[in-house]
Amino acid sequence: MLYTQSFSKLIDVFRKMPGVGNKSAVRMAYYILSLPKEEVDDMIATICAAKEKIGYCSICQNTTEQDVCEICSNPKRDKSVICVVEQPKDVVALEKTREYYGTYHVLHGCISPMDSIGPEDIKIKELLARVADEEVKEVIMAISPSIEGEATTMYISRLLKPFDIKVTRIAYGIPVGGDLEYADQVTLAKAIEGRREI
Amino acid sequence: MLYTQSFSKLIDVFRKMPGVGNKSAVRMAYYILSLPKEEVDDMIATICAAKEKIGYCSICQNTTEQDVCEICSNPKRDKSVICVVEQPKDVVALEKTREYYGTYHVLHGCISPMDSIGPEDIKIKELLARVADEEVKEVIMAISPSIEGEATTMYISRLLKPFDIKVTRIAYGIPVGGDLEYADQVTLAKAIEGRREI
Repeated sequence: MLYTQSFSKLIDVFRKMPGVGNKSAVRMAYYILSLPKEEVDDMIATICAAKEKIGYCSICQNTTEQDVCEICSNPKRDKSVICVVEQPKDVVALEKTREYYGTYHVLHGCISPMDSIGPEDIKIKELLARVADEEVKEVIMAISPSIEGEATTMYISRLLKPFDIKVTRIAYGIPVGGDLEYADQVTLAKAIEGRREI
Repeated sequence: MLYTQSFSKLIDVFRKMPGVGNKSAVRMAYYILSLPKEEVDDMIATICAAKEKIGYCSICQNTTEQDVCEICSNPKRDKSVICVVEQPKDVVALEKTREYYGTYHVLHGCISPMDSIGPEDIKIKELLARVADEEVKEVIMAISPSIEGEATTMYISRLLKPFDIKVTRIAYGIPVGGDLEYADQVTLAKAIEGRREI
């Protein structure tokens, strides 16, 4: 046995994290050991505080420390447009563009029968409630075009049909600065399909 | 502000870890948020237990859960040979070879004036005490050949001169399976310098 029991367990804590392999987990575990006790206590306090304070916006389901998030409670944001995304990090990515002034709806996942995630496991009914209640004119689907993402987009757009609103999806195509040569066939096909007059 | 205050702090906890960049830290922070409260509590308990239980071997300074580590307390290990390494992870690397049957001494760093780490900040006096007390016949320096590593190796070997023992260092050269073409000049020069008769 190369590592002691407590140390192996400590390595496992980090190995479970996304994007952390065996070597990184060992490095992180040694880092924890090398820290003074007070710094580890601070770290733990920060994790506990985050877990305690951060919840989900009662409207858009994005992470927030209030009941209603900053975006939903901002009177300048256009409440008639909802952009539907998979994860809170997608909201951050879209906010960085500084081009979108509507609101969001975070699904917290995609429909994925393989992982036994059904429509009731993600925040679809909350979206439908919003569309029914609020004065929504457009729902923009901004879910990544994976198999599960596509299925989720189609499922939701079908549910939104009965409401008299515009349902759109973000464009697929060649990334700006990208090279045709390096684009995969599916992306290229989507780019041709979605061509626009200039 | 893209992230709430508690969330930014949570990201910072992970960003401070070795080998973790901004994107990975954000992913880890989201991972923590997505975990059920109980799992986070388990995680914290594991970290606390590791910090509490794991200390340093009173002989070789390696990490251990006892007063004297498994290697130092193993009667089969040759106590007359001490292999001096920088970090506990170096002991693990050497143990994996299953070729070394002596003991270790972990310095916990290198002499590095740039980072204001002097000889008294690493476990050199503990090594000297061992050499003076125990029946040591050989000290093998196995410190990485960086500038700081070289300085530390030279410093320690000079301190060991007065004792009547053999002081050696591990061989530098072409890694097994490595290609001459891809070896850097310093390594090649060391390999030629350290050539042996066949």
